[in-house]
Amino acid sequence: MKKILVQLDGDRTPSVFDAITAYDAGVDAILQYGGIDPREVRDLVYGAMFTRGPADLKNSAVFIGGTDVRKGEAMLQEAKQAFFGPLRVSVMLDANGCNTTATAAVVKIISATEVRGRRVVVLAGTGPVGQRAAALLAKEGADVVLTSRTLERARSTCATLKSRFGVEPTPAAAGDPEGTRRVLEGAHAVLCTGVEGVSLLPEDMWREHETLAVLGDVNAVPPLGIEGSKPTWDGEEVDGKKVFGALAIGDLKMKIHKRCIQRLFEQNDLVLDVEEIEAVAKELV
Amino acid sequence: MKKILVQLDGDRTPSVFDAITAYDAGVDAILQYGGIDPREVRDLVYGAMFTRGPADLKNSAVFIGGTDVRKGEAMLQEAKQAFFGPLRVSVMLDANGCNTTATAAVVKIISATEVRGRRVVVLAGTGPVGQRAAALLAKEGADVVLTSRTLERARSTCATLKSRFGVEPTPAAAGDPEGTRRVLEGAHAVLCTGVEGVSLLPEDMWREHETLAVLGDVNAVPPLGIEGSKPTWDGEEVDGKKVFGALAIGDLKMKIHKRCIQRLFEQNDLVLDVEEIEAVAKELV
Amino acid sequence: MKKILVQLDGDRTPSVFDAITAYDAGVDAILQYGGIDPREVRDLVYGAMFTRGPADLKNSAVFIGGTDVRKGEAMLQEAKQAFFGPLRVSVMLDANGCNTTATAAVVKIISATEVRGRRVVVLAGTGPVGQRAAALLAKEGADVVLTSRTLERARSTCATLKSRFGVEPTPAAAGDPEGTRRVLEGAHAVLCTGVEGVSLLPEDMWREHETLAVLGDVNAVPPLGIEGSKPTWDGEEVDGKKVFGALAIGDLKMKIHKRCIQRLFEQNDLVLDVEEIEAVAKELV
Repeated sequence: MKKILVQLDGDRTPSVFDAITAYDAGVDAILQYGGIDPREVRDLVYGAMFTRGPADLKNSAVFIGGTDVRKGEAMLQEAKQAFFGPLRVSVMLDANGCNTTATAAVVKIISATEVRGRRVVVLAGTGPVGQRAAALLAKEGADVVLTSRTLERARSTCATLKSRFGVEPTPAAAGDPEGTRRVLEGAHAVLCTGVEGVSLLPEDMWREHETLAVLGDVNAVPPLGIEGSKPTWDGEEVDGKKVFGALAIGDLKMKIHKRCIQRLFEQNDLVLDVEEIEAVAKELV
Repeated sequence: MKKILVQLDGDRTPSVFDAITAYDAGVDAILQYGGIDPREVRDLVYGAMFTRGPADLKNSAVFIGGTDVRKGEAMLQEAKQAFFGPLRVSVMLDANGCNTTATAAVVKIISATEVRGRRVVVLAGTGPVGQRAAALLAKEGADVVLTSRTLERARSTCATLKSRFGVEPTPAAAGDPEGTRRVLEGAHAVLCTGVEGVSLLPEDMWREHETLAVLGDVNAVPPLGIEGSKPTWDGEEVDGKKVFGALAIGDLKMKIHKRCIQRLFEQNDLVLDVEEIEAVAKELV
Repeated sequence: MKKILVQLDGDRTPSVFDAITAYDAGVDAILQYGGIDPREVRDLVYGAMFTRGPADLKNSAVFIGGTDVRKGEAMLQEAKQAFFGPLRVSVMLDANGCNTTATAAVVKIISATEVRGRRVVVLAGTGPVGQRAAALLAKEGADVVLTSRTLERARSTCATLKSRFGVEPTPAAAGDPEGTRRVLEGAHAVLCTGVEGVSLLPEDMWREHETLAVLGDVNAVPPLGIEGSKPTWDGEEVDGKKVFGALAIGDLKMKIHKRCIQRLFEQNDLVLDVEEIEAVAKELV
C-alpha cells in the first residue's frame, strides 16, 4: 500500500521544497493542493480519513505548509477538528519551515550547553521561528528574553506565547547595538532569529562577551545575524564560545523534517506541531 | 510502462478520496486537475490520446469526478467527443461517487431479492444517486416509484430518466410520513437516497410493513434514512426484512470503484458510466 | 533517490502530454504547476535547488512548457537567473513543443541532404517552430529564406532571429501561390511550418519543381501544408524528392523529447533550449 501524503499549502503554488523532501523521506505519492483556505481543509482531510480502512490509515497523512504561518496554524486547527475519535490521520505543521527550523536551532543550543536556569536571549524573536524557539527554550527551563525593536512588539509576542505555550519569556527592546548589549548582560546563550540579511550582533560584542557560551543564527543570507561568523559553523569554538551558523542548523532542520515525515507513516494519530517535532529532533542528536 | 490516470475534477481541489482510491487500485501516477470546466476537457483528453502509441494507450485513462454531477456529465460528453475512432482512452464518470454508490445500493438489493415485476420505491430519489438507482432498478424490471417532497419535482426527475435511460418510473409525492406510508403500500423493496442526516422512514412504519422484504439506505450520518437501523447492517434480518445500511453499501461501493479503476487499464476503449459500472459491480457480488 | 521533474506550465492546466512523456522517459515523480507567471519561477526553482545536496541535484530537474512560447522563454530566463554557480538544476524549455518539433523537422531534412550553401525556404516561418527551424538551418550553413504573408512580418521575425541566434535569414513575402513559386526558385529544400489545416504548397508546384530535393511539413491536420503528401511519409521519394510528413517528424520529436528528459537527469547543469536539443536530436538519427 502506497504511502500517500496530502500536501496542503496556503500559497498558490505548493512548496517544491516540501514535496521533494517528502519524497526523499520515503513517501510514495504526494497529492499537492495550493492556495488552500482553512475552510477547505475539512473536506480534504475527510478524503484522507474515509478512504482506507482503520488498519491502513497510517499510510495516509497530511502535511500543512506555506509561507503564511498563521494560516497554517488555522489549517492545522481545522484538520484536528475534522477527526472523529480513532478515525484520523497523522498531520504535520511546518508552514514556512518554522517548526523544523526552530527545533533545529534549539536542539543545537541545548546539545551544546545546559540552559536550565540560565539567561537565553532570542534576538528579533517576534517571527514564527523566534516565537517557537523562545517557547521551547522556556520549556527547557531557560530564563528566556525575547527582543524586538520596540518593547511593545516584544510584549505582544510574549503574551501570545503565554496563551499558546503557557510560558512567560521576558520581553525586551533591542533596536540598536546599545540595546542589544544591555539585553545580553549575564546571558549564557543567544539565538538570532531576525530576517535574512540583517546583522543583529556586532562581532566585537559577542567575541568579548564575558558570560555568553553558545550562539546560534538562522539567517544564511549575508550580512549574517552574527557578524563575523560563518553559516557552516557547527559549534565552532571561537573565543571560548560555541557558534552555530544557519547552514549547520539548516542541515539538522532537514534531517528533522525527513524524520518527521517518516514518523507520520508509523501511526495514524500523530499531530506534529512544534513540541512533538522537538521530541523527534532530540532523538536525532 | 506506468499506468497513468488523468483525474479531471469540477471542484477547485480535486477529490482526495478519488485519488487515494485510484492509487489503491494500482494506478502508478495520477495527474490531478481541479476546477475543470467542460470546455477544458478536450485538450486534456487529447494530451492523453496523442502521447503513447496505440498499443500502449490502455495504460492511460481519464477519471471524471467532483461534487457537481451535471458538470461531470458534461465533461464525460466532451471526453467522448474528443475521441477519434480507435484513438481513444478509457474514461470513467463518478462525480460525487454517484455511479458507484447507486450501483452498490442496487446490487445489494437485487442480490437479496428478485425485483422484476415488483414495486420498488426510491425515497427522495431526485438526487444523482437516487436517479441512477431508480434507472438501474427499472432496467432490472422493477416497477419503480420515485418520490420527492413535491409531485412536481418527482415528475421532472422521471422525465429526465426517460430521456436519459429510456425508463419510466412512477413519480410520487412523499413529503410526510403519511405520504411515505401511501407510496410504500404493496412495495417489495425501498431504497432511501435522501440527503445526509434526514430520516425518511419511521421505525414502526417499516418494521410492521406487510410486503416490504428488502430495505437500503445510503445515508451514514445520523439521523439515518431508515430510523432504528444501523449503518453497518449488511442484509441484517429484522422482522423478516433484510436491511442494508450506508456503511455496508459504502463498503461495496469502494470495491466497485477500485475494480472499475482497474478495468480502465485493461483496454483503451471503455466508457464507464452507470450501466457499465453496474455490470462491473455484478461481477463482484 | 527519486528522479523528480518540476513541470512549470504557463497554462492553467499543465500539459498532460508533457507529463505522460516525462513518465515514459523514466521520471519517478512530477510536481505539476499550472498558470505560472515568470515572476513565480524563481521561488519554485529555489525549491528544487536547495533541497537535495550537490551530489544529488541531478535527480531534480525543471521542465518549462505551455502554449505561450514567449512566456516560456521568460520563464527559462528566470530559471537561469535563479542559479547560484554550481548550485543549480537542469532545465528544459519546450513550450508548445516548439523546440522538439523544430529540431525534429530540421534533423529530418539534414539527414536527407546537405543544406550548407543551399537555398532552404521556411514557409510561414514566423511562429515558434518556424523561427527555431530557420535559425537551426541557418546555423547549419543553409541560405535560409523565411516567409510570411507580408514582407513586414517576415522582416520583423528575421530581426528577432538575428538578435536571438545571430543568424540572418532572408525575409520574403509568400501570401499566394505566385509568391510561393517565386521564393522557391532555386530552392534545394522547403519546410512548411504554418498553422494546422492550411495548405501552403500546391501539389503541381512541388512535384514539378526543378531544384527541390527535400520537403518537410509539421502540419498533421488536413489540409496539409504540402498538398498531396501524407503525414506518415518518412522521406518518401516522390518525383525524385524526399518528403517528410508531420507524423514522421512527430515520431522523431517524441524520441527527442524523451531523450532530452533523460539527459536532464544525467547532470545538474544542463540548459536544454533549441540548440542543445538539436544536439541531442542528432545523436538519435
